[in-house]
Amino acid sequence: MSDMIGLIRVFTTENQSIIEEHGNVISRLYGLPVMSKCIPDQPLGIFNDETEQIAIPKIVELGKQMEKDGCKLLLISCAADPAIEQLRKNVSIPVVGAGSAAALTALALGEPVGVMGITECIPAVMENLLGDSLVQYIRPEDVTNTTDLLTQAGRDKALEAARSLLSQGTKVIVFACTGFSTIGFADVLRKELRVPVIDAVEAEGLYASNFYKQLEAEPASF
Amino acid sequence: MSDMIGLIRVFTTENQSIIEEHGNVISRLYGLPVMSKCIPDQPLGIFNDETEQIAIPKIVELGKQMEKDGCKLLLISCAADPAIEQLRKNVSIPVVGAGSAAALTALALGEPVGVMGITECIPAVMENLLGDSLVQYIRPEDVTNTTDLLTQAGRDKALEAARSLLSQGTKVIVFACTGFSTIGFADVLRKELRVPVIDAVEAEGLYASNFYKQLEAEPASF
Repeated sequence: MSDMIGLIRVFTTENQSIIEEHGNVISRLYGLPVMSKCIPDQPLGIFNDETEQIAIPKIVELGKQMEKDGCKLLLISCAADPAIEQLRKNVSIPVVGAGSAAALTALALGEPVGVMGITECIPAVMENLLGDSLVQYIRPEDVTNTTDLLTQAGRDKALEAARSLLSQGTKVIVFACTGFSTIGFADVLRKELRVPVIDAVEAEGLYASNFYKQLEAEPASF
Repeated sequence: MSDMIGLIRVFTTENQSIIEEHGNVISRLYGLPVMSKCIPDQPLGIFNDETEQIAIPKIVELGKQMEKDGCKLLLISCAADPAIEQLRKNVSIPVVGAGSAAALTALALGEPVGVMGITECIPAVMENLLGDSLVQYIRPEDVTNTTDLLTQAGRDKALEAARSLLSQGTKVIVFACTGFSTIGFADVLRKELRVPVIDAVEAEGLYASNFYKQLEAEPASF
């Protein structure tokens, strides 16, 4: 377990292959060793302020434990970056969040950004970072949780939402939900709409690859 | 020349190996095909507002020509991101700047940032992006152009400047001059000071690798 990237899933499941979905994307794309764990007793994850508050201490505890277990970098694999400031205060290794990673990657293109997610509002961390670059946030019709994305109807609505973003002047689409990563929806949009897409899991992996290489070269004390 | 990344050096030289220094770093780190060119008639590059204004139309023309030649993505390989908005308006391919790339990469760590460069002030693009994360900007003593970095005295002063940034609370050091890349100074600091370092050329390459992979997968119209 030592020298790995520790990836935190902010919901609860016993299914190890589900827990490892994001880590597998990152290992495949960037060749990084990722250990994934989920927080306890929260099978529905974070879906409002109250459930976020409940999750925060769990994320901090899990991150601290992963550092003790030898992880060299932590990923909070959720587009809302829950508990990121608290965790950074409690560990001495770098912490990257999927939401900030996705927004920052989009900003490097300097083009108008459209964000797509499954919550009523765009995560605050993404809205704050994107600032004036943000054209519009959209939630696909009738899609309110990640399982809705697993149906053909859900994917059709998501494609429709992406088209709507483009019609409003968006030049790059950013996902504000890691559920889109799980279904490989970025590649669908890239092919169907020929538009650059920033996938939140791919984005956290991109930064992880950069910082992890530095740690490999010489153990840095962050 | 088609399907390559076009890298723009914002000074003039006849020496092809100097022109290709940044592109070689990016090819080595990310395995990307890079074609490098420099702007004409500006051997001293950009060193104040006037020389930046003179360079802008040259950068735009060179970028347009590189797009015509089949480049799929452009890099303005200078920490001040000169002409980036103008170039983005004049081409249909993505444009990434070294300065914004470095600042955005640092922001993904969420830690206090110290910036080191050779100009009197930090480039505006970096200052604006870093916002409250910026602790301090520093220029190494007696270092006012990139050739000063090639001497032992210059490197000693740069190391001293980095130590000074750390003593002020900086947790990550960002280079605001690509001259540090040319001398491989990021690795020196990582080893000597065990601190994460964002190198502007490495950072533009990181984003280029992400966007270029998308273009490879399916030609996107940005």
